[in-house]
Amino acid sequence: METEQKKYLLTAKKSENITDWYTQVIVNSEFVDYSAVSGMMVYRPDSYFAWDTIKEATDKLFKEAGVQDVYFPLFIPERFLMKESEHVKGFSPEVAWITHAGQSQLSERLAVRPTSETIMYDSFSRWIRSWRDLPIKFNIWASVVRWEFKHPTPLLRSREFLWNEGHSAFATLEEAEAERKIILDIYEKILREYLAIPGIRGRKTDNEKFAGAVASYSIEHLMPDGWVLQGPDHHSDGQNFARAFDIRFIDKDGQRKYVYQNTYAISTRELGAMVLTHGDDKGLVLPPKLARIQIVLVPIYNDLKKEEVLRYSRSVYESLRSNFRTYLDDRDEYSPGWKYNEWEFKGVPVRLEIGQREVDSNSVTTVRRDTGRKEGMKLEQLRDSLVSLLEDIHTNLYTRALKFLESHTFAVKSYEQLKKLVGNGIAQAPWCGSYECEAKINEETGAKITNLPSSEEENVKGQMCIYCGKEAKYIANFARSY
Amino acid sequence: METEQKKYLLTAKKSENITDWYTQVIVNSEFVDYSAVSGMMVYRPDSYFAWDTIKEATDKLFKEAGVQDVYFPLFIPERFLMKESEHVKGFSPEVAWITHAGQSQLSERLAVRPTSETIMYDSFSRWIRSWRDLPIKFNIWASVVRWEFKHPTPLLRSREFLWNEGHSAFATLEEAEAERKIILDIYEKILREYLAIPGIRGRKTDNEKFAGAVASYSIEHLMPDGWVLQGPDHHSDGQNFARAFDIRFIDKDGQRKYVYQNTYAISTRELGAMVLTHGDDKGLVLPPKLARIQIVLVPIYNDLKKEEVLRYSRSVYESLRSNFRTYLDDRDEYSPGWKYNEWEFKGVPVRLEIGQREVDSNSVTTVRRDTGRKEGMKLEQLRDSLVSLLEDIHTNLYTRALKFLESHTFAVKSYEQLKKLVGNGIAQAPWCGSYECEAKINEETGAKITNLPSSEEENVKGQMCIYCGKEAKYIANFARSY
Repeated sequence: METEQKKYLLTAKKSENITDWYTQVIVNSEFVDYSAVSGMMVYRPDSYFAWDTIKEATDKLFKEAGVQDVYFPLFIPERFLMKESEHVKGFSPEVAWITHAGQSQLSERLAVRPTSETIMYDSFSRWIRSWRDLPIKFNIWASVVRWEFKHPTPLLRSREFLWNEGHSAFATLEEAEAERKIILDIYEKILREYLAIPGIRGRKTDNEKFAGAVASYSIEHLMPDGWVLQGPDHHSDGQNFARAFDIRFIDKDGQRKYVYQNTYAISTRELGAMVLTHGDDKGLVLPPKLARIQIVLVPIYNDLKKEEVLRYSRSVYESLRSNFRTYLDDRDEYSPGWKYNEWEFKGVPVRLEIGQREVDSNSVTTVRRDTGRKEGMKLEQLRDSLVSLLEDIHTNLYTRALKFLESHTFAVKSYEQLKKLVGNGIAQAPWCGSYECEAKINEETGAKITNLPSSEEENVKGQMCIYCGKEAKYIANFARSY
Repeated sequence: METEQKKYLLTAKKSENITDWYTQVIVNSEFVDYSAVSGMMVYRPDSYFAWDTIKEATDKLFKEAGVQDVYFPLFIPERFLMKESEHVKGFSPEVAWITHAGQSQLSERLAVRPTSETIMYDSFSRWIRSWRDLPIKFNIWASVVRWEFKHPTPLLRSREFLWNEGHSAFATLEEAEAERKIILDIYEKILREYLAIPGIRGRKTDNEKFAGAVASYSIEHLMPDGWVLQGPDHHSDGQNFARAFDIRFIDKDGQRKYVYQNTYAISTRELGAMVLTHGDDKGLVLPPKLARIQIVLVPIYNDLKKEEVLRYSRSVYESLRSNFRTYLDDRDEYSPGWKYNEWEFKGVPVRLEIGQREVDSNSVTTVRRDTGRKEGMKLEQLRDSLVSLLEDIHTNLYTRALKFLESHTFAVKSYEQLKKLVGNGIAQAPWCGSYECEAKINEETGAKITNLPSSEEENVKGQMCIYCGKEAKYIANFARSY
């Protein structure tokens, strides 16, 4: 008993020390765990279930958009990584290298996939011959390794993470450009409908774009501490990799041309964003669609009424389990109160309390995890009521997060104002587009440009850069960033 | 055009040179491809679709059996692999080693997961405290790396392959033993209902069991060349790993005890078994459930009737696409005959030929890939007819494979007979159980004991070992093995 109770320890407050709170919540709730390999983590059933659900839902939308799943080798020859100069600069400091197999030294080092452009595009160069072979819209669900030397944090900055890697090749730039909205719409839908978290879409600055890309677009999340976390992204690679890997096709006009390429990804980092966004001082708060257990039943009884309450609880459980992911917690050695704490810590969306009163009135008492609100529900409409309740919890979580984002996004007019707001939300300010101003602002305030929200591009006319005072080209989102 | 036609080259005959035939079929049909990393392969859309379907179907059955999916790190510290002495002997010759990250040398070498026992059981030892924490039934879907130095063959012997890794821990030996049938039943169901291939279930000899296990059980496939390929397996690890990793629990009686463990796996090797079993001299033959494209429509027209035939074909396509994975091949630059060959090479189960005759009679002509049989079908019952046809193709593939297995499994009475049959099927013979006889037979005939079919154990009474003439303990399956 004592060991058990220690496991669910949560002493840090989210509002006071979000870093400690985060670690305590995700590890002690048994969502994830550290492993013996520093910086690499274990996905326990609750976190893997959430990721697998995201994966399946995303994959379905990808397939509707004509994307096909494939799989490419985990290892990449060193000479391949070297082919695109920006790409190698970006990744080689973080590559885990295979040098030996069994007792033998390899003749060439192999990188454990930090991203798959180079190994895939070697195949693309052999597969693509004519316009008939295009477009190629391929995707991998895989794990990647980036040996970051910054302090690793489970889900947010792990040396191994799980993701999708979309890789497309098109005959024309127009087709390649058209893909961006399709993919980012899919990601936003998944974030909204499964993770219940909003994001801000926009283009990354040249300084922040993907290593090897012409332009990168991201969805950024504002976390409760006022810092921004980068979410899914989509990169326009232009013909950079096509030239490095000689990916050409004979077009309808008989000309041999380079393809245009894109890549895109969503990763397990989103689970970290989800925990940070929805969790509270009682623990995890899981959006219902991602909860491995959606409804937990806790029977409350004394010795006299035990059998009656348990029998009733079992019949409620049986009536619900085909419609909801339901768990009946009939452990005898724990008190109801202890069970409440445990399931609240683990973020289960709805608790059903079932005691003698409920038995007598043919009802259950529901308790929502997100608000703690209690409500009696009659057995007759229980299934429909629970469907509505779970939907309502999802909507509430999303709305709450969206309100926070909106109330912490500020149109700032002066550099002083920007400096004050940094670390406390997103400061939207006009920017001239120069790397010098971007770097200076970062140096002086710690804020970086998370992205350039495209919807704002037209609103910038006549405004001046918040730093240098020259004509502004963009409205930029400035924030401290994870 | 010329390049395209070369791609579909199949010159080897299955019955004459199955090795060349296999390579030509899987690579030239665009099922898989070689990669730049020797021994590692690329799963193109058709092979990945097949694997993903197997994975999802298996996962569903696992979940019904109470198994939960998790994910563990890709890397394993060298000291962990060393903990179980048989295990390390079995795997260390094939391990790919990480020695560097970025520019830094690691203080301890890391193995790329060849199998996950050691990294998982380190966690188990921390997670399991009391009987309440048991049973644990975890599973990973992952890729593993085994740097085999034998000649690699795509799917059959790849240095990286995809698989499930089931890992369970139980309080009692009885529970652990009971799991075997549940899991092997699941595997057999998947093999029968998805891959349309039968297998022979049985225990491996001590000499052939998994490194670290007390006993291993396998499902073995007989290939058309008379050799045997090992399929899915389930290993009883007893308390071997529990002792090596100190995985103990406080039982209901207050005693601290070691857990009993099992592991089990099915891998992408099954796709190789599927290709070898069903393919023919025209190329792949895919079982309908695993075919990314189940039905291909080929319109046949001259210039005069082109629009009418295409319009009709499109309407047939539209009427089928929500029920079947359907593709309309309306490419103008290829002849119908060329298309027939291409889709037959790729193993698409059913072709619909649509010409003026079909338009005039409100019908289509169906051609089955497995038998080549043609049949006219009226549009009114087309959907139902195609459902039946696909089911019939599946049944035919399975039945054909089962008949081959049965007609090539021989109860042999003498060592001379065994020697003659080896390489041409499975020779079932009484065996005394000694390693000496097993090794001698292997040395002299090239046959190994693929497994000991459990159903035969009782039939052995009074029989003598086919090699030494002493009392037999088992009926053993002798065969040459992939």
